[in-house]
Amino acid sequence: VSGYGWYDSSRDFFTYQEGLETQQNQAYCAVASAAAVINSFRGKLDLPVDKKYKPYPYATQDSLFNECTDENVTVHNSTFDGLLSSPGGLNLDQTKALLECNLPSEGWSVDAVHVDPSNVSIDDMRKDLVMALMSPASRVIVNFNRAAANQEGGGHFSPIGGYSHERDAFLVMDVAKYKYPYVWIPAPVLYRSLMTVDACGSWKSPEAQVKLKESHPELSEPESASDLARSLSKLGCKAAYRGYLLVSQL
Amino acid sequence: VSGYGWYDSSRDFFTYQEGLETQQNQAYCAVASAAAVINSFRGKLDLPVDKKYKPYPYATQDSLFNECTDENVTVHNSTFDGLLSSPGGLNLDQTKALLECNLPSEGWSVDAVHVDPSNVSIDDMRKDLVMALMSPASRVIVNFNRAAANQEGGGHFSPIGGYSHERDAFLVMDVAKYKYPYVWIPAPVLYRSLMTVDACGSWKSPEAQVKLKESHPELSEPESASDLARSLSKLGCKAAYRGYLLVSQL
Repeated sequence: VSGYGWYDSSRDFFTYQEGLETQQNQAYCAVASAAAVINSFRGKLDLPVDKKYKPYPYATQDSLFNECTDENVTVHNSTFDGLLSSPGGLNLDQTKALLECNLPSEGWSVDAVHVDPSNVSIDDMRKDLVMALMSPASRVIVNFNRAAANQEGGGHFSPIGGYSHERDAFLVMDVAKYKYPYVWIPAPVLYRSLMTVDACGSWKSPEAQVKLKESHPELSEPESASDLARSLSKLGCKAAYRGYLLVSQL
Repeated sequence: VSGYGWYDSSRDFFTYQEGLETQQNQAYCAVASAAAVINSFRGKLDLPVDKKYKPYPYATQDSLFNECTDENVTVHNSTFDGLLSSPGGLNLDQTKALLECNLPSEGWSVDAVHVDPSNVSIDDMRKDLVMALMSPASRVIVNFNRAAANQEGGGHFSPIGGYSHERDAFLVMDVAKYKYPYVWIPAPVLYRSLMTVDACGSWKSPEAQVKLKESHPELSEPESASDLARSLSKLGCKAAYRGYLLVSQL
């Protein structure tokens, strides 16, 4: 297939690509990745209906936020998204919770694998991802550090669209289409970029976010690196390894 | 390629698909198609920068509107888009103008071919489209009537992503992803759906739109079929055949 050179494992690429929209702002990489995964299960679950596309069901980045996510992920509204404001964003466990809020409570699983090198080897990672890519009922989202993958930027999320046995590389379908095209990343480079630390890999969400808004409104939408650092501290952020999410219909 | 069965002409499919976003509301099919075409020329022209993705260039549906389109296409703002409000939308010649406003004035061409059956045969259509799909420097957008293509709905725009010689069919990459997946349409069915009449295929834009807003504000964002009919009449709408757009770097 000309546009992607040595592509030899196409199934998931096609599963995802129609419902994969660009992240709607620079903090929504996890949200856009989750929406793409949910749309890729069209026919296997009821997709949400966004008012702008009524009556047609389609997971949009806005439509993933609801009462469940307010309780379990982050408080979302048009003026205040907490860590969802750039330069923040969701962490791996929040993204897991976002997906769980938008999937049926029975018959589905969302596993978050933090790539701590003492527990998860490159072989573990490769096996998990390839197995999921081979299954019509599974999807993969990675949370990686762009810098460690030789890209410009920091923490980022995107779905994986395929694996090339020949090159031992994964196709990252970047949801920041304005920034990077879909790109093949060799397994060792992907592993290195997952095995990185998110300074706010866990935090007291969403309670701390609500409190922060009340006590330090100027920190609730941090626009500088130093404000962000103060924000993270006030939010009770703790470091955690990045990693990947496996989403499966059981 | 598994997901698209008998796909045998993949180039344009891959050229488009990364920059092809869902239309952002139910009237923006032409705008979304134009943005997809412009993004597919990344590297061959300077893409616009939308403030939400600053500093990264990427044609968004909002970013296509500018002073040139206000003069030549339609008056665009957040509360009043004239025929851009659902159930309206752009016509073929407005979409041509929208593209021309967003392409360099030299070295590019946008041809609008109205499929009037007395002038344009199915063989003419097939030849034009296949030639364009075979050229790395050309793109195709069709303006068809969904009903005549056995779909639900009326006038619609989408890019064409490929041609299958074996089946004599074109891949319509629907920008209303919430409504239809990418679909192969046999050439005779596509021809039949292009060879249909847009009740407002030409009109006095944008002057009539500005006047209508002043004289009949209730008709400027018609919400019923009867209001739309009155709107179209006040706007000086004339019928014209739908058809296709050929966009080329010369």
